[in-house]
Amino acid sequence: MNVVEKLKIAIIGYGNIGKYAVEAVKSAADMELVGIVRRSGEVPAGVDVPVTDDISKLGKVDAAILCTPTRSVEGYALQCLKLGISTVDSYDIHSTIYELQMTLDIAAKAGGAASIISAGWDPGTDSVVRAIMLASAPNGLTYTDFGPGMSMGHTVAAKAINGVQNALSMTMPMGYGVHRRDVYIETQPGADFEKVKADLLADPYFTLDETHVYKVDDVNTLIDRGHGVNMVRRGGAGKTQNQFLQWKMSIDNPALTSQIMVACARAAVKQQPGAYTMLEFPLIDMLPGCKEDLIRKLV
Amino acid sequence: MNVVEKLKIAIIGYGNIGKYAVEAVKSAADMELVGIVRRSGEVPAGVDVPVTDDISKLGKVDAAILCTPTRSVEGYALQCLKLGISTVDSYDIHSTIYELQMTLDIAAKAGGAASIISAGWDPGTDSVVRAIMLASAPNGLTYTDFGPGMSMGHTVAAKAINGVQNALSMTMPMGYGVHRRDVYIETQPGADFEKVKADLLADPYFTLDETHVYKVDDVNTLIDRGHGVNMVRRGGAGKTQNQFLQWKMSIDNPALTSQIMVACARAAVKQQPGAYTMLEFPLIDMLPGCKEDLIRKLV
Repeated sequence: MNVVEKLKIAIIGYGNIGKYAVEAVKSAADMELVGIVRRSGEVPAGVDVPVTDDISKLGKVDAAILCTPTRSVEGYALQCLKLGISTVDSYDIHSTIYELQMTLDIAAKAGGAASIISAGWDPGTDSVVRAIMLASAPNGLTYTDFGPGMSMGHTVAAKAINGVQNALSMTMPMGYGVHRRDVYIETQPGADFEKVKADLLADPYFTLDETHVYKVDDVNTLIDRGHGVNMVRRGGAGKTQNQFLQWKMSIDNPALTSQIMVACARAAVKQQPGAYTMLEFPLIDMLPGCKEDLIRKLV
Repeated sequence: MNVVEKLKIAIIGYGNIGKYAVEAVKSAADMELVGIVRRSGEVPAGVDVPVTDDISKLGKVDAAILCTPTRSVEGYALQCLKLGISTVDSYDIHSTIYELQMTLDIAAKAGGAASIISAGWDPGTDSVVRAIMLASAPNGLTYTDFGPGMSMGHTVAAKAINGVQNALSMTMPMGYGVHRRDVYIETQPGADFEKVKADLLADPYFTLDETHVYKVDDVNTLIDRGHGVNMVRRGGAGKTQNQFLQWKMSIDNPALTSQIMVACARAAVKQQPGAYTMLEFPLIDMLPGCKEDLIRKLV
């Protein structure tokens, strides 16, 4: 076998996902972490790779893993693609994924790089499983249950309520696509919990679902990164009914998200210029090693 | 939207899988069943499409679904590919899948068609799930449990034992990749069941697994096409351990196999000439409808 050069990977953003992405890249024998990009440019404790405030200062980069908040994805992706650097993001606003793809597709083709968007577990591997289920049983219903696990969006919404010191919103699967919200609230000194609770229940983020609000002394003792999914489809294949398919996971949320993004970075550099969701490239491209070995092992 | 011509599909072989493939093609709004190819050329009861002994007599065919015994796949695929007809098979001899791919890849490129091999549920969608699991948690173990369900290979082996009138070999999942064989035997008049049982237990097909042999009066009353899989992986993502992923199905075996083959026929005509396993093409290509709608719905 030839000696193959390692993929040069940069990580943009050093929050929860970024920290795990560093571990996942370092654990990949076919990758080299060339640096971390942070707005502040500050070197976090324990980091032994270059840290910069601009990816163009890192030298040659094959792919950048965008671990920024979802709203910043487009800007960073456009910058990378213009520099000819492939990108992977975990953009998770389902209603505008296609619009992001169209925007990044033009930039990717112009820059001669590839962009894999909405890579993670949902959107991401769950999307792939939904496609497999639909192909296997074209008529029927798919239900996706999430959790129990922390909802970032709902937690942020709860923290924004007047009188809230700290909050945790848990997504509780009640079965077949229905979810309950369990919200744990630490109030600010002097705040009236009943008022906080009423305001929260009236917030558009919480009016759609059954929501339980609990007063606690210390939210931080309740936080766990565990999450999960239980997706089921019962449907017909041809004229045959009652095919049952199920996908289940119990996972550390940021660790799994970043691991899938790292696998997609491997895939990104193998694609023709353009932007792709996880449904649109061959899944073997996510895996290290030679094609023959992978086919013999997995197929 | 433009009016798109329907895909012209032929089915080769009219056994268990072939019959269900007819139903799946007829249920697909974007496909037209142009004919069935059988060695005998005989028209089976209830069939309302042309039946022939040679695919070249059917006029234009975009893709052929090979529902023949696995050993006949290569011959039929080579004939189709030479005619420029894309093929889908469910070749299931795991140890020689890569060799089949190499042979058909040359023929496909020469004929200007695509061949999707080993399409079904295992090999097939299970192979895809194994790839997703490996990408999600690179370090760890994946276990695949099959059944309970009928094993075609072991049933044929049991029927070949001297003194056996009819037989059914069931694959029983004992957990984490270990399987038991439950074999139901109808003996020929005058045959000694104890001798039959001893011969069966000494057959190389059955020596590797715990095998139970039962004497029954009528094997046919025991046969059900139901089957299933339970695949689990526990592994590490980056430095984070204890990620748990699971894929489970309870299905009508030939109906699911043929449905997945039909979805792969849709994918085959979209690929560049060559031979592909299900790991090697974008899974969105299996689905009917426009890309934008699919991405909005599934991702």
